Amino acid sequence: MGIGKNIKRVDAWAKVTGQAKYTQDYMDDRMLVAKVVHSTIANGLVTGFDLEEALKVPGVVKIVTCFDVPDIDFCTPGHPWSVEAAHQDIRDRRLLNRRVRYYGDDVAAVIAENEIAANRAVRLIKVHYEEYPPLVDVADAMAEGAPVMHENVPDNILKHTSFALGEMSFDEALKEDGLLYLDKTYDTQRVQHCHIELPVSYAYQDGNGKITVTTSTQIPHIVRRVIGQALGIPWGQVRVIKPYIGGGFGNKQDVLYEPLNAFLCMQVGGRPVRLELTREETFANTRVRHAIRFHMQAAVRPDGTLVARRVQAYSNQGGYASHGHAIVANASNMIKQLYRDEKALESESFTVYTSTVAAGAMRGYGIPQGDFASECLIDDLAGLIGMDPLEFRLKNCMEDGYKDPHNGITFHSYGLKKCIQAGREAIGWDEKRKVYARQTGSKRRGIGMAIFCYKTGVYPISLETASCRMVLNQDGSVQLMMGATEIGQGADTVFTQMASEVLGITEDRIYIVSTQDTDVTPFDTGAYASRQTYVSGKAVRQTAEMLKDKILEYAAWMLKLDQKNLSIRDNMIIDPEGEDLLTMEALATEALYSLERSVHISAESTSHCKENTFASGACFAEVEVDMPLGKVEVLNIVNVHDSGILINPKLAEAQVHGGMSMGLGYGLSEVLMYDEKGKPLNNNLLDYKLPTAMDTPELEVQFVELQDPTGPFGNKALGEPPAIPVAPALRNAVLQATGVAFDELPMEPQRMVAAFKTAGLI
Amino acid sequence: MGIGKNIKRVDAWAKVTGQAKYTQDYMDDRMLVAKVVHSTIANGLVTGFDLEEALKVPGVVKIVTCFDVPDIDFCTPGHPWSVEAAHQDIRDRRLLNRRVRYYGDDVAAVIAENEIAANRAVRLIKVHYEEYPPLVDVADAMAEGAPVMHENVPDNILKHTSFALGEMSFDEALKEDGLLYLDKTYDTQRVQHCHIELPVSYAYQDGNGKITVTTSTQIPHIVRRVIGQALGIPWGQVRVIKPYIGGGFGNKQDVLYEPLNAFLCMQVGGRPVRLELTREETFANTRVRHAIRFHMQAAVRPDGTLVARRVQAYSNQGGYASHGHAIVANASNMIKQLYRDEKALESESFTVYTSTVAAGAMRGYGIPQGDFASECLIDDLAGLIGMDPLEFRLKNCMEDGYKDPHNGITFHSYGLKKCIQAGREAIGWDEKRKVYARQTGSKRRGIGMAIFCYKTGVYPISLETASCRMVLNQDGSVQLMMGATEIGQGADTVFTQMASEVLGITEDRIYIVSTQDTDVTPFDTGAYASRQTYVSGKAVRQTAEMLKDKILEYAAWMLKLDQKNLSIRDNMIIDPEGEDLLTMEALATEALYSLERSVHISAESTSHCKENTFASGACFAEVEVDMPLGKVEVLNIVNVHDSGILINPKLAEAQVHGGMSMGLGYGLSEVLMYDEKGKPLNNNLLDYKLPTAMDTPELEVQFVELQDPTGPFGNKALGEPPAIPVAPALRNAVLQATGVAFDELPMEPQRMVAAFKTAGLI
Repeated sequence: MGIGKNIKRVDAWAKVTGQAKYTQDYMDDRMLVAKVVHSTIANGLVTGFDLEEALKVPGVVKIVTCFDVPDIDFCTPGHPWSVEAAHQDIRDRRLLNRRVRYYGDDVAAVIAENEIAANRAVRLIKVHYEEYPPLVDVADAMAEGAPVMHENVPDNILKHTSFALGEMSFDEALKEDGLLYLDKTYDTQRVQHCHIELPVSYAYQDGNGKITVTTSTQIPHIVRRVIGQALGIPWGQVRVIKPYIGGGFGNKQDVLYEPLNAFLCMQVGGRPVRLELTREETFANTRVRHAIRFHMQAAVRPDGTLVARRVQAYSNQGGYASHGHAIVANASNMIKQLYRDEKALESESFTVYTSTVAAGAMRGYGIPQGDFASECLIDDLAGLIGMDPLEFRLKNCMEDGYKDPHNGITFHSYGLKKCIQAGREAIGWDEKRKVYARQTGSKRRGIGMAIFCYKTGVYPISLETASCRMVLNQDGSVQLMMGATEIGQGADTVFTQMASEVLGITEDRIYIVSTQDTDVTPFDTGAYASRQTYVSGKAVRQTAEMLKDKILEYAAWMLKLDQKNLSIRDNMIIDPEGEDLLTMEALATEALYSLERSVHISAESTSHCKENTFASGACFAEVEVDMPLGKVEVLNIVNVHDSGILINPKLAEAQVHGGMSMGLGYGLSEVLMYDEKGKPLNNNLLDYKLPTAMDTPELEVQFVELQDPTGPFGNKALGEPPAIPVAPALRNAVLQATGVAFDELPMEPQRMVAAFKTAGLI
Repeated sequence: MGIGKNIKRVDAWAKVTGQAKYTQDYMDDRMLVAKVVHSTIANGLVTGFDLEEALKVPGVVKIVTCFDVPDIDFCTPGHPWSVEAAHQDIRDRRLLNRRVRYYGDDVAAVIAENEIAANRAVRLIKVHYEEYPPLVDVADAMAEGAPVMHENVPDNILKHTSFALGEMSFDEALKEDGLLYLDKTYDTQRVQHCHIELPVSYAYQDGNGKITVTTSTQIPHIVRRVIGQALGIPWGQVRVIKPYIGGGFGNKQDVLYEPLNAFLCMQVGGRPVRLELTREETFANTRVRHAIRFHMQAAVRPDGTLVARRVQAYSNQGGYASHGHAIVANASNMIKQLYRDEKALESESFTVYTSTVAAGAMRGYGIPQGDFASECLIDDLAGLIGMDPLEFRLKNCMEDGYKDPHNGITFHSYGLKKCIQAGREAIGWDEKRKVYARQTGSKRRGIGMAIFCYKTGVYPISLETASCRMVLNQDGSVQLMMGATEIGQGADTVFTQMASEVLGITEDRIYIVSTQDTDVTPFDTGAYASRQTYVSGKAVRQTAEMLKDKILEYAAWMLKLDQKNLSIRDNMIIDPEGEDLLTMEALATEALYSLERSVHISAESTSHCKENTFASGACFAEVEVDMPLGKVEVLNIVNVHDSGILINPKLAEAQVHGGMSMGLGYGLSEVLMYDEKGKPLNNNLLDYKLPTAMDTPELEVQFVELQDPTGPFGNKALGEPPAIPVAPALRNAVLQATGVAFDELPMEPQRMVAAFKTAGLI
């Protein structure tokens, strides 16, 4: 019972037997079907439609175009709303857009009796455009005379920020004698989340005006607010229900098609309308990980001291702001935090609109990109001075007690160097680095590593608030309600363990309500930023303490004993000697049905979290590179994580497995490609190379478990970190194996073969 | 805004447009279908089944018989559970019964892929019985040597209670000189609720064992408990959802087929199974109003003083206890309360098992029966001494401040005599009684009246507890969650008005959650006993006061003002001068999203109600009796009600209309008949004569609005009362018109023609 135990997931049985209900499971065939008409140009303006043929399709109920939607620009990212206008998200899109800003932009929608009719009508709609040149890359968009994507952003630069640290400028620092200097560019690619469950929702409107939207989202309370904003109706008039969801990874931390779905149901008198995306639409029309180019300059002393760095990051935002600049800012911050520069660090970040699919949140939120640049640079610098890159990291990485000079986030529990040490031993770093130092032949082996740090939640950059409600059932079991969401990661299970730990009630007697329903569910901003076990966990702890207090107060009244002497253990009220006094069942039944004192014991509270802490870790990879085939075989890979106390070690391990496999795809195969017209080339799972189970090696996981003093149970971030260090560790292993530095992801066969040819290795 | 206003029902639009969702609306065709196999004998034992042919029907998934169900006897009535064994309901039935106790008892169930297969299989099942003599009437069941219905009740008398009031015994009181004496028997019949929506539910079981049952019920939290008890599983493992329901009238204050439905889904691995009753089953297999025979003896002085009464009541319970003796006890109490006997009152009540359908709760809960006996007797006594029955009532009826000597329930706000006076004027009593005193011919007119009193809720006889939760939405609107249920009577609307009144927030900004879901909904015992506006209304008031306090506390913090000086009016925080300071919207947004102090404002509380008060009223009817046709035409009818302050006068009036039309059917046409073998004869809406709109005269309603000091808003019971006094008022009107006393309900044509022939009138 409680923290640190490997209890079975509370939803395990439901999920493996197929009983768990997802949005699809609540739909029925009587619902109308909506299909979106997507633009077939990447940049331009809709000048008109020819709907005649489409309207003739039997079963078509209504066609709505970008000329019919409210005159309201709205924002989509899953951030807490800000009461200060300056901190509010960017409102730059409509329910349907007349100004087309990427190939596939939403320009109209068909509502029909069934999917066949809807699809037929979509194909028969003729859209007339005024076409502008596509802006596929950041360079296109920043070029002189590039077409303006959004009127109020004439240079297409959504945002530009910079900071500097150290006693002097980067240029000043370079003047020191004997420094070795490096100037490199690292490129990360556009990838997609590829969650199993596609974005899907359905909406209807009640007679009293309330719109109910059931959707696969990570952020039900935020979806509620954004629908209200997008439609210009009171937020309380919107009800959002989130059933089980089949993965999100940040894509569902954006409000995607729910506002349009809500709007469409209002166009047909409130009738239920469902809107499901295809896989192709999910690639082309939802969100992707930002492709970021990092221009890195660095100077190092021959003894391995990192003296100065200059980072310029260019983030390809796509056509709409979504989470926008927050992602490249996060990357740049992490580059700053992970190593100290003795003299200077200069950082500059640009987020640039292009006419491609909008980039948004994805597991790691900029850190995988930043970590790739940071960790490639570190290995390149170590190579430059002939130093072991592990030793170079130990010498320069963030230290125990590190505190970010800008936002004050502090390393309250420090496991980074312990993780490096554990990984070093697990992979056999010292021996293998030597063995693989000089190889010949077409297959060569190498080992590489990367480290990272990751903050937990978003405080103080943004708001961290979470509520929880608990109710004592008639039989002494407990209902646990969270605004925080289960999105496959096991949140429901760890919240249950937390409640069990505090309450003294066994997990089998705690029923978490997995479905969020914004009409009744306590408020929480949702699943993102690896925040829930930390931020929402505090709400569980606090609420459980309140509930326990109420239970014991009632027990004291029943037993005519002093409350101070009572406690709960294994569903029993006990005395200080541990003797059983009363079952929870007897207490609960009495509390509800007492003729003397009937009370429905419940507790509800908000935890406004004003703390943060760093998690950290390292990945070590051993690879064999088949150079003629351009193929990397991962022989061994180990992630070591410093995430504080683990609530459920087995679940934690599974979380790391998932992140590592995502990192493998990021490093070796995945990229969403566009042609020069701005049209996506491989927006399907045949051409987009997501690794399968067959591609995944044995994944080793270790933890350095330290009690974090700020975590509700000594815990800190774990959700996103595992995906971060894998790609740079692989790149550094390939570098050791072959001597070729791959500075652009992914390291897929064509690119590798070309590079090995250039290097004269094949 | 608030109390006393005729706001539109909050569910009006949804209900008239068909958008309101009922249990059926949540079902889908993929669900399995269950059908119950009913016994074709009224009394006996199942000795075996022949299932072979039934199992061959394509689509049949499983057949479960009375030999397969848990060895658990359970109780069904919608009462709060009692922690004291002596006060617990009677557990006398199984999920399926081997011992058959009425024609139609549940002996087996078929689960099939569709309804056609299920029905075919039901018809092919052969049941073997050992048959006992049927016990249709109380007399049969109390006869020497009658077969025993339940082993632990050898005389078939489920319960027998008695009480006596006054300075002497009834026999002693009779010794006074000059008394006039009456000995009569009044018979009330078995009727059915005839709610529009038939009993319907569906159930499935999750992987973690939780069983969810969506059902048309008045009492979701009680259904949860009873399913737990019937299946022998922890109550917290059961989740009950109650959507909108299409009427209940007490039939759905019993746990009918939900436990069997839950059990059946467990027999097919948790797959969803739906169980819908037909109208025929609803008549024959759910609950009916108890047929009660009252043997009344009374003595009166020539001056109109009621000196003594003796009442013996025999209640036909049917085969299972259900609400049992509580109903006849309620009737006997009301007879006691409504008039004072100067010297003696003796009362004796019997509840007797017979082999007919179980009788249970129905609007009025015994009072319509008791009132019929009481008010017939009063007119018969008035006739005996030649006194105006209205004057006779005024002289003897309960007085202002009446307090029941047994349970202490007090008449805190007294409108009874005002109701009599108002009705007297409305119907033109004084003139018409004279005009109609002496008539000839085959059509004759008369006027009659009846009065009643009715307690509000069940305190102190049983527990009264109710909880409420309110949450401030992001836009300053409010979610209102009640365990109390909307069953068509308008509860959602009046709770909304109550919340609005206290909060200062307009009704359009208060969203009541109409669906109860026992996993998240605050506890309440449900809709019965005319308790909700009184008992649950107290929970609304208390919770709204808590929420308001939290809102104003936050407003004071935001505005840096003293909370004492702040209030809310029309969705604005105002100062003592009534100046607007802040919108609720701004406050709510700040409260959630403040970086300084984020709090999700909510309130939840239980009101344990330890008060009660009497409502009262009168019905006056003017009729024309066509004696050769045996037909009663109601020329005028008026109900006058003393129900305290009306929350919504229009809704109150509609409630009285519904009750009056139910009373008309009770008085004139409705009876569920059985043949001598114990088989129901007219269990369908063709042969059972429910009045239609065409049969219903203009219904006049008046109220005497007095502030009740114990009601949360000066209000008291209104739900059940309107149905009570109509039948006796009609009977007394017919008595005046024809001189024939109909002492048995209903006054339907055959019975009337026979009586008029006997009386020599036709």
